[in-house]
Amino acid sequence: MSEHRPGSPVRVALLGCGTVGTEVVRLLEDQAADLAARVGAPVEIAGIAVRRPHRHPGVRQDLLTTDAAALVAREDVDVVVEVVGGIEPARTLLLDAIKSGKSVVTANKALLAEDGAVLAEAADAAGVDLYYEASVAGAIPLLRPLRESLAGDRITRVAGIVNGTTNFILSAMAESGAGYADALEEATRLGYAEADPTADVDGYDAASKAAILATIAFHTRVTAADVHCEGIRRVTAADIAAADGLGCVIKLLAICERVPGAADASESVSARVYPAMIPKAHPLAGVDGAFNAVFVEADAAGQLMFYGQGAGGAPTASAILGDLVAVARNRVGGGRGPRESSYARLPVRPMGDVPTRYHVSLEVADRAGVLSAVAGEFARRGVSIAAVRQTGGGEDGPASADGNARLVVVTHGAPDSALHATVEALAELDVVLGVESVLRVEGLGRPVSTLGVAG
Amino acid sequence: MSEHRPGSPVRVALLGCGTVGTEVVRLLEDQAADLAARVGAPVEIAGIAVRRPHRHPGVRQDLLTTDAAALVAREDVDVVVEVVGGIEPARTLLLDAIKSGKSVVTANKALLAEDGAVLAEAADAAGVDLYYEASVAGAIPLLRPLRESLAGDRITRVAGIVNGTTNFILSAMAESGAGYADALEEATRLGYAEADPTADVDGYDAASKAAILATIAFHTRVTAADVHCEGIRRVTAADIAAADGLGCVIKLLAICERVPGAADASESVSARVYPAMIPKAHPLAGVDGAFNAVFVEADAAGQLMFYGQGAGGAPTASAILGDLVAVARNRVGGGRGPRESSYARLPVRPMGDVPTRYHVSLEVADRAGVLSAVAGEFARRGVSIAAVRQTGGGEDGPASADGNARLVVVTHGAPDSALHATVEALAELDVVLGVESVLRVEGLGRPVSTLGVAG
Repeated sequence: MSEHRPGSPVRVALLGCGTVGTEVVRLLEDQAADLAARVGAPVEIAGIAVRRPHRHPGVRQDLLTTDAAALVAREDVDVVVEVVGGIEPARTLLLDAIKSGKSVVTANKALLAEDGAVLAEAADAAGVDLYYEASVAGAIPLLRPLRESLAGDRITRVAGIVNGTTNFILSAMAESGAGYADALEEATRLGYAEADPTADVDGYDAASKAAILATIAFHTRVTAADVHCEGIRRVTAADIAAADGLGCVIKLLAICERVPGAADASESVSARVYPAMIPKAHPLAGVDGAFNAVFVEADAAGQLMFYGQGAGGAPTASAILGDLVAVARNRVGGGRGPRESSYARLPVRPMGDVPTRYHVSLEVADRAGVLSAVAGEFARRGVSIAAVRQTGGGEDGPASADGNARLVVVTHGAPDSALHATVEALAELDVVLGVESVLRVEGLGRPVSTLGVAG
Repeated sequence: MSEHRPGSPVRVALLGCGTVGTEVVRLLEDQAADLAARVGAPVEIAGIAVRRPHRHPGVRQDLLTTDAAALVAREDVDVVVEVVGGIEPARTLLLDAIKSGKSVVTANKALLAEDGAVLAEAADAAGVDLYYEASVAGAIPLLRPLRESLAGDRITRVAGIVNGTTNFILSAMAESGAGYADALEEATRLGYAEADPTADVDGYDAASKAAILATIAFHTRVTAADVHCEGIRRVTAADIAAADGLGCVIKLLAICERVPGAADASESVSARVYPAMIPKAHPLAGVDGAFNAVFVEADAAGQLMFYGQGAGGAPTASAILGDLVAVARNRVGGGRGPRESSYARLPVRPMGDVPTRYHVSLEVADRAGVLSAVAGEFARRGVSIAAVRQTGGGEDGPASADGNARLVVVTHGAPDSALHATVEALAELDVVLGVESVLRVEGLGRPVSTLGVAG
């Protein structure tokens, strides 16, 4: 990294100028005097790489270029801010930037979740900064608190709502009783879902964020491929109603946990994304609409929650500017931000071995012996049942319209594979007419008794 | 600051070994390997200054000393961690430490709120770090996010529940209907209030924290003396009930706000502590018991909230260890954390000039013309009324037991001095038999309509 000359500006190359990039430019211009005072030197835009310059009439035309590689290579550039997204050409551009001594600020969660290690090692070798607060939970200060404020603590769990699109859809379903398809349509109409919502609704976006969070929280490299990922497409209005009946709501959660080592295994970590029932009393349950929130547990700090806007141009730009000020300060003052730390190298536990809890709703024949048969399948696989509720059957009130009964089972914690196998076996039972709903239940630090299922 | 020799440990002098200090020692010992990996060098305790060594049987006796000044002066000490509290001798010890090139981590809110500028300037001159995350809101990462994550944004408001004792008391009053004295007694019995609760219940503790928060948020030096401070001693069960009737709860808030400049005045800041009604729908309203939460608004980031344990040995120690790792990393890697920034030098607005809103509950004679007389006093001082509710009077249902009526007025925003003067004038009116309750109302970004007073 070249030395900063006192009084000279810190010069920034911006890659991409969409919703977020436009806000970055605006904030840099509107707050120029404040930023200079905070950094100790002016922060200037050296150039902006875009694909179609004529589409950015509000931006100073002399800053625009279509040649991102040439912009990154310029000697008068100190910091590269990347808001293009996607793996390539972002990866090559950022690696080139780092190798030529430039610090990098990026919001690119997909790239970080896939190739964070390569970027971090390159930054380390080059002695430059790599910051990416904006890649997870938009404006919410989260990565810096996890990496720095909790650096002297032992984080045991990071669990949160980190995708606004799916949270909007699930909130809308809970509010209106709408089905998934209708709620998605509304989200698209209002601009909360993209034309192709796959990355959001199938959980890939949240999985990238889970990989980034787990990496930082557990000092262990976790990639998107390590994250078990289920989206919300199969969540039904009936699931939402069932959750409500149990005093729960359904949220798409990104969960990163330490899993204690058993006798034959050392401690490991789990990173996973799926829709889950959580108790309404949990602080995450009240996080509605496009908001994000992340719940953190650490040995000494106890329970923490961070809440705010997880997406959008201005909130994401706020996070980028925070990183940019840090990088610029380091540039002016000498020194670097904390390096990546993956010394712990904990193994990532396969989903099947992770202890989870299931809520299973079955349509069953209304006759004696049903509960015994169902309970037997759970017992056979060592799964302990926390609560059972049977409705619509003989003594329990009027039979359902079709004369069948419904059996709802909530389990204690058991390996996910045992739970999965149990559900498959249940579907094969004669007395089970249909598996209506299977959802995981996450207490997130709250005891089972907070679920209203024991009655 | 002396150079760090590669491989050598970072050595820490601990001043004080009470609830928090004991946890700091425990965390440093239990996590020694992890901390060394994160810092890049072992972090060792060089000595612990206490008043009565025999009271610390659980601590390595060879580390204990009663001579804090000598410990601070030792050449083999790199970092001084102070958890003694109070102004002296902490101030002298920390200034000596800084001047001799040692970095400082402290939880001392009173000292920072009174003399933060002196400490910051000394640290700047000596080129050492001064960190104090633990001084506000215990384990909640708050100062680092405000100072670093939001460094590229314009923070407009920081408002929060930053004192667990008073929040426990107010929560208990709201839950049980108990009066202040009974709730305080319970808090004392359960260990949530100290034998002398003055600093907590009179708001001084929260005021110190408000000064620290305002200083960081607005890049402007604010001291405890600048903070308008009212405690909770005068909050009654009737106040709590009145708040409940309006869809509100009462919380002791520390509020730091930018106040926009009028035609004849430039922008200023306000820092104040008082019990206020806030809408139940506000995220802060659900923060009960000894928990803390801080709500932050910034131009680009929008609304953020930080939630967690605000006190206690382990949570406070977690914050101290986070700072200690940062300081130690800087020591090993070269470089420094962000300096204090008070370049903005905004004036602090006197409380009388700060726009606030009042809720006033009056016992009034049940006769015609009362509302007119009361409304006239507000109008005379330019205070606009948002809502009025009269109960117990003739047409509005049965008269109250004593034949009098109650008039509840909620105002729009007006200078606090005008509101205060109005209340004094109301008390002098013949038709006003008593001023039952006066409380400020804080919407905290929510519109007036969220208060259920308009009916």
